Amino acid sequence: MSATPQHSTNIVPQKTAVSREDRMRVSGQRGAVLWFTGLSGSGKSTVASAVEQKLNAAGRLTYLLDGDNVRHGLNGDLGFSDIDRMENIRRVGHVAKLFWDANVITLVSFISPFRSERQFARELIGADFAEIFVDTPIELCEQRDPKGLYKKARKGEIPAFTGISSPYEAPEQPEIVLKTGEESLETCVDHVLAWLRYRGYTEG
Amino acid sequence: MSATPQHSTNIVPQKTAVSREDRMRVSGQRGAVLWFTGLSGSGKSTVASAVEQKLNAAGRLTYLLDGDNVRHGLNGDLGFSDIDRMENIRRVGHVAKLFWDANVITLVSFISPFRSERQFARELIGADFAEIFVDTPIELCEQRDPKGLYKKARKGEIPAFTGISSPYEAPEQPEIVLKTGEESLETCVDHVLAWLRYRGYTEG
Repeated sequence: MSATPQHSTNIVPQKTAVSREDRMRVSGQRGAVLWFTGLSGSGKSTVASAVEQKLNAAGRLTYLLDGDNVRHGLNGDLGFSDIDRMENIRRVGHVAKLFWDANVITLVSFISPFRSERQFARELIGADFAEIFVDTPIELCEQRDPKGLYKKARKGEIPAFTGISSPYEAPEQPEIVLKTGEESLETCVDHVLAWLRYRGYTEG
Repeated sequence: MSATPQHSTNIVPQKTAVSREDRMRVSGQRGAVLWFTGLSGSGKSTVASAVEQKLNAAGRLTYLLDGDNVRHGLNGDLGFSDIDRMENIRRVGHVAKLFWDANVITLVSFISPFRSERQFARELIGADFAEIFVDTPIELCEQRDPKGLYKKARKGEIPAFTGISSPYEAPEQPEIVLKTGEESLETCVDHVLAWLRYRGYTEG
């Protein structure tokens, strides 16, 4: 131990954390969470991806949390019971908060059918949260059925399928409503970008 | 339904995702995960914070995952049993991967005492992963005891305390070893920065 001259005084046992403001100076942007909610097949991920592309092209740092990168990884231990679906959203909310804290413009695309869980995410994030209701009639979602899930649900092969055998609680006061059955993808994307611009998250 | 002229053709049910490379163009940096492991009181968070400050000052986008922002949020449902501690690290590994994918230089500071869980994180992240062993003798950690945890553990008030009543499995081939008992904080920080520079994550 005599070879360790400076010993216990070397490391001051306290940290001076890099703050959100410090990170903001580096990224040149403020974090926000765009929370897309809607039925399966409503077009959530399509719109979210298109928004992300526009933001990326404009030099904004973004990240999209969706089933593809969360359900198979962090939440790979969860199934589709009500309890597991709520735990899924609880974790997604917390991860979105971490990304928000890192000043990333964070897009979240999950059905998130329950008002209480979206309210939870809203309270977690605070003022930088936008609930985006992708309001597509179920008939149209079922007609699109991109993953063939409605077909399976109608046959009873998927228990608790949102809109058929499990409720979708529509948002009461969403920041943005997108009618993908009436408006073009471009128009839907523009609504979201306008919100970000108006709130000062992006320029121009 | 006649009021919806463009109907199901509006939203093409596929997404063209923004890729890691697209995000790299925006951030001007490649993601990496600096995984700090070591006993309680070893100085993990102190070194990690000091590294983060240097990186932030150099204009690099960083994020620190540690007990403060993960244990009270995402992993607030977990306790300190072996199973819960492993689930804690499993989730942290997946969140670190998401941040890596967003091209953030991600610092992880958890005791993470088990080889298998660090190996899991290493395999999840791949080549951009650095295991940083904060190699401080337990006598020194106990002497520092910044949170008074060793005192409690010795009294038997904390079950399964790493280094006392639960094992710490030292890394066998860590990318970086920091001897906080022998080297100054500045020297420890320089080791980490040199690794990042040498591997091309930062300049000059």
